[in-house]
Amino acid sequence: MSEHPVLEKLSSNKCFEGELIKYKFKSSALGDLDAQFNLYLPPSVSKGKVPLLTYLAGLTCTEDNGAQKGAFFQVASAQGIALLFPDTSPRGAGVPGEDADWDFGTGAGFYLDATNPAYSKNYNMLTHVTVELPQVIEANNLPIDLGRQSIFGHSMGGHGALTLYLASKTKQYRSASAFAPITNPTKCPWGEKAFNGYLQGGIEEAKAIYDATELISKSEGSVHILIDYGTGDNFYKQGQLLPENFLKAARDAGYDEFQVRVRSQDGYDHSYYFISTFAADHIHFHANFLKA
Amino acid sequence: MSEHPVLEKLSSNKCFEGELIKYKFKSSALGDLDAQFNLYLPPSVSKGKVPLLTYLAGLTCTEDNGAQKGAFFQVASAQGIALLFPDTSPRGAGVPGEDADWDFGTGAGFYLDATNPAYSKNYNMLTHVTVELPQVIEANNLPIDLGRQSIFGHSMGGHGALTLYLASKTKQYRSASAFAPITNPTKCPWGEKAFNGYLQGGIEEAKAIYDATELISKSEGSVHILIDYGTGDNFYKQGQLLPENFLKAARDAGYDEFQVRVRSQDGYDHSYYFISTFAADHIHFHANFLKA
Repeated sequence: MSEHPVLEKLSSNKCFEGELIKYKFKSSALGDLDAQFNLYLPPSVSKGKVPLLTYLAGLTCTEDNGAQKGAFFQVASAQGIALLFPDTSPRGAGVPGEDADWDFGTGAGFYLDATNPAYSKNYNMLTHVTVELPQVIEANNLPIDLGRQSIFGHSMGGHGALTLYLASKTKQYRSASAFAPITNPTKCPWGEKAFNGYLQGGIEEAKAIYDATELISKSEGSVHILIDYGTGDNFYKQGQLLPENFLKAARDAGYDEFQVRVRSQDGYDHSYYFISTFAADHIHFHANFLKA
Repeated sequence: MSEHPVLEKLSSNKCFEGELIKYKFKSSALGDLDAQFNLYLPPSVSKGKVPLLTYLAGLTCTEDNGAQKGAFFQVASAQGIALLFPDTSPRGAGVPGEDADWDFGTGAGFYLDATNPAYSKNYNMLTHVTVELPQVIEANNLPIDLGRQSIFGHSMGGHGALTLYLASKTKQYRSASAFAPITNPTKCPWGEKAFNGYLQGGIEEAKAIYDATELISKSEGSVHILIDYGTGDNFYKQGQLLPENFLKAARDAGYDEFQVRVRSQDGYDHSYYFISTFAADHIHFHANFLKA
């Protein structure tokens, strides 16, 4: 990977006295394809480096959905936290069939590193999010304190946030939270399809590293996790999210509600209207750890 | 106009304990075309009827932009105010050329009633917003107190909010506010194009009823107006908005800063990132009058 990828600034918008910047660069992790991300810098960057909260979006989304619809910036501005919005997959890899379905391929990278040779050149969102983007931020002297990172996300991005948090051997993130996450993907249709497509070893390969319920059951040491899901969420009803499985595994592993909090929100659905309602809660949750 | 148009509920999303509902109905004002709107009902509708704040969106937008990106619902929920999001034009009228430009025709109704015969059957957003939608709300027994209405909007929708407020002989709205509004459309390219297209009498016809700067200069009695615009707004720089003209006309007409407040926001642009930053200010402004 290049040590100093060139960042091209595509746009900048002032928002709650801070700045939202869209960048483009050539991503080694994604097979030298162009990748875009949004970065929100709170006004407090004028006084020094700020902690980083990464937001992982869901199926079909891009780096824009969370920025446009999440209603995250008021609290991020007030708390002095930068927000990083990666894309959800490589774009234009040219793998046959990658655009055939909305829940696999383009827009559906599942925050893993593919081992199936058809995908392994480009579909490496795990490395892109956890290694490459922080390197790019550092190499370009952006005012971020990479020693203070947390992560959150929605749906597939909630899966990403929980698994990247729990699987990180370096404890890269101080806390993780999720809106309507896929918490047990080896047991739901979305996850089965993704793992069987991206991974040579399929679901068995995924269990050890890409399933939050499996990971929490084997976790040791303290964790800081907040999950919200809505009872009116059709994907919850269809068994794609399975938050009860995650909650049971966490409790069985000895984690109490102060370490793993899973909240059922009456009548809320899978949309950004749900996310925006609890956005402030989540950023305040992470602020506890990012500013500690 | 039908007294009891049938409302079809297309979707519902819970948001900040209230409900955002998307409706469709056959619009007489728009020439019997299907029209859609979003309506946000705060949780306080369980205790009785609530006041209504109408949000008019800008060029190219639909009933969804403000709902998805405006970050209006937290304060609307807390203040107990319903929000109405109309579309920005008729859809599918079939007038030759209506889809040729982004700033005229579809998505660009300018909140007027057309007098050019080519457009007068369908392009009647003034009647749609001020007469038809309230009638539809009443006929369908939605929990809205139509005796308490205010209006706000963005860009072309800011033009709509200011002109509908100032021109209403019945004082339909208690207050008006706008983000980056077109305030003197008879003197800017967007307005000239719209008026010359929609109105038989062109710009001269528009001056008396569709130009906020002209209207404020002839207004009598107290008004309640708040305007925010950003100094980084390219449309402001290009002379499409002309807030200085509106401000001067208001001061010349004797309105002080308690009645007409025009705020220049340093570095903000024309986007919803700007709107969301000042969204809470605007809803609190209207709450002063809607809850009086």
